Amino acid sequence: MSDFSIGVDLGGTNLRVAAVTPEGRILEKVSIETNVSLGPDLAIDKMCGVIQQLVAKYKNDNLCGIGLGLPGILDIENGIMRKAANLPGWANYPARAEIERRLCASGILKNHAHAMIERVFIENDARAAALGEHWIGAGRGVRNMAMLTLGTGIGGCVILDGKIWHGINGMAGEFGHVTVEPEGPPCGCGNRGCAERYASASAIKRMVQEAIANGASSLAQAASSDAEFGVKSIFQLAMQGEEHARAIFRTFGRYLGILLADLVNILNLEMFVIGGGVASAWEAFAPAMMAELCARSIVFGAVAANSAFCAASANPGSSNRDGGFQTPWSGDRKTVITQAVLGSDAGLYGAAHLAALANQHPARDMK
Amino acid sequence: MSDFSIGVDLGGTNLRVAAVTPEGRILEKVSIETNVSLGPDLAIDKMCGVIQQLVAKYKNDNLCGIGLGLPGILDIENGIMRKAANLPGWANYPARAEIERRLCASGILKNHAHAMIERVFIENDARAAALGEHWIGAGRGVRNMAMLTLGTGIGGCVILDGKIWHGINGMAGEFGHVTVEPEGPPCGCGNRGCAERYASASAIKRMVQEAIANGASSLAQAASSDAEFGVKSIFQLAMQGEEHARAIFRTFGRYLGILLADLVNILNLEMFVIGGGVASAWEAFAPAMMAELCARSIVFGAVAANSAFCAASANPGSSNRDGGFQTPWSGDRKTVITQAVLGSDAGLYGAAHLAALANQHPARDMK
Repeated sequence: MSDFSIGVDLGGTNLRVAAVTPEGRILEKVSIETNVSLGPDLAIDKMCGVIQQLVAKYKNDNLCGIGLGLPGILDIENGIMRKAANLPGWANYPARAEIERRLCASGILKNHAHAMIERVFIENDARAAALGEHWIGAGRGVRNMAMLTLGTGIGGCVILDGKIWHGINGMAGEFGHVTVEPEGPPCGCGNRGCAERYASASAIKRMVQEAIANGASSLAQAASSDAEFGVKSIFQLAMQGEEHARAIFRTFGRYLGILLADLVNILNLEMFVIGGGVASAWEAFAPAMMAELCARSIVFGAVAANSAFCAASANPGSSNRDGGFQTPWSGDRKTVITQAVLGSDAGLYGAAHLAALANQHPARDMK
Repeated sequence: MSDFSIGVDLGGTNLRVAAVTPEGRILEKVSIETNVSLGPDLAIDKMCGVIQQLVAKYKNDNLCGIGLGLPGILDIENGIMRKAANLPGWANYPARAEIERRLCASGILKNHAHAMIERVFIENDARAAALGEHWIGAGRGVRNMAMLTLGTGIGGCVILDGKIWHGINGMAGEFGHVTVEPEGPPCGCGNRGCAERYASASAIKRMVQEAIANGASSLAQAASSDAEFGVKSIFQLAMQGEEHARAIFRTFGRYLGILLADLVNILNLEMFVIGGGVASAWEAFAPAMMAELCARSIVFGAVAANSAFCAASANPGSSNRDGGFQTPWSGDRKTVITQAVLGSDAGLYGAAHLAALANQHPARDMK
């Protein structure tokens, strides 16, 4: 029987656990309810129960390690969840130690402090998803990339030379709080006009409410007749040509394009992967996003002036502002903007892959 | 006699060459006119003449290498200047090969292709300055930092794990073209509202012209009575309390603060060094810059909520938005915003230091 890692994706609704081979094949995936109201101890109990089942089935001797994607701000070095907006009771919860204790008691981990430390790893969920896409998804084979996870907010992750860039406090990649409109709507972070106030599920909700308040009767009608009115409904309306819904996704795409242009200008990476639930509305927001990116990024413009997307976009500047800059050394390393391919499994793959990467882990090396 | 490197800083006005010890001591510094109108070949002739003198004096056997800071977009891998806005005739000039050829002819470099390749190195001037500050200036001992060079525009450089981050096409660090005001004034890069349209010498010039056009008679008077009216004069007026000049530096600081907040949120580095000629107006723009940074960066706010600067700034959000986030693991790794200390010699030090770093050079390792 082959080697495997355990990947765990802890969400506000579902807790998912998978056994994944080193080649990226899911041997088995188990999904249970998180039941956030019951607090962290019971969730960790249930999680460890599922891990135990999978390890029993695929044999302890073949277990390479256990990785967890957790939705919050983490102290990776010490294995502690610091802040978790959507998980009450998890602030300052020592997730890694609690898991290790239980798996030790059940005989899955040997009771040697050293051996344990090498086997359970935690990572922020947006970074776990980026790691998954980098390992086996859209970013396969790409050494330098970033991922934007469009959900309630915007999660971000930068991967440089094949490794996650955590920053000095593990807080790098806060793309959602880049200012894209200095006097824009206030954000929970204390800033105004953050990217995630325009390009996320909550932003769409806000823009729909504003449009309805401003008399968009077609949206009001759709909202009242559809019990599950949400991002998906707005997307469908936009694709049917409803003008208010289209305008909302144009705004979404415009500000996401500004954010991308900033990231391209600052980092000059090979690839930017757009994932998360709201990324499935790609067709509705991508044209505005790409037009804005082409018009605003000198770096993207320089390498993409010949690309079909930039040429097709309403951007008179892209073809001439690089004045003969099409040289082989830049032309053959284009910046690619692309959709994620692993869907909601990205974080599960990434978490499973954490153990393999652990010896390169900057946060653990950091003095 | 001790080892030394040669550092060259090629500017639009002056060409400076220095012999620098591995400890960062300048043995000798020579400054001559660049005479841009004469084109690259004559400039390189003169440069190589000065190098020859210095090498003769400090002995060829002690020469560790030669580094050049060049003002433009470079193909570092092939040693070619690609674009140089302020140096006519330098586009696509094979600077490294031309220098190697001359120094070979004069016996300073041996005619072994391999040996030569290890001894002449080029880098963009903003990055050379950052390297200098990192080596022996404000960023000494800091592994992860960025530098913003405020001049005619804004030069940028990211240093990660002690190495310059070039990006996939050598175009990372275009901080000056980050969008800070989506509908702001147009920029030569094709974008609108770029950071360097607000926080550079040319931005100050534009804002002064606009203020005068809008009736700022005190500025108009100062401009007509001062033959050398420029950034320095505006700075002095601001420090004397002249309200139009103060407003210009508040705008400058505000948008520089937005740029910094974006960079802090994206990269979470230890230090941001502000250098370049315009940075000497620090007292006039720093208060607005820090207030904006504190108000806008969730990452900076989290680690700096206790800092005197943030507490003193007009920022009601900074003290409470991190809700108990002051933990030892983040609190002891603060983000520092500071002035550069090497002045106009930063690029000269950095260029001299290039040779020592060459074996870690990502652009050369890149496949």
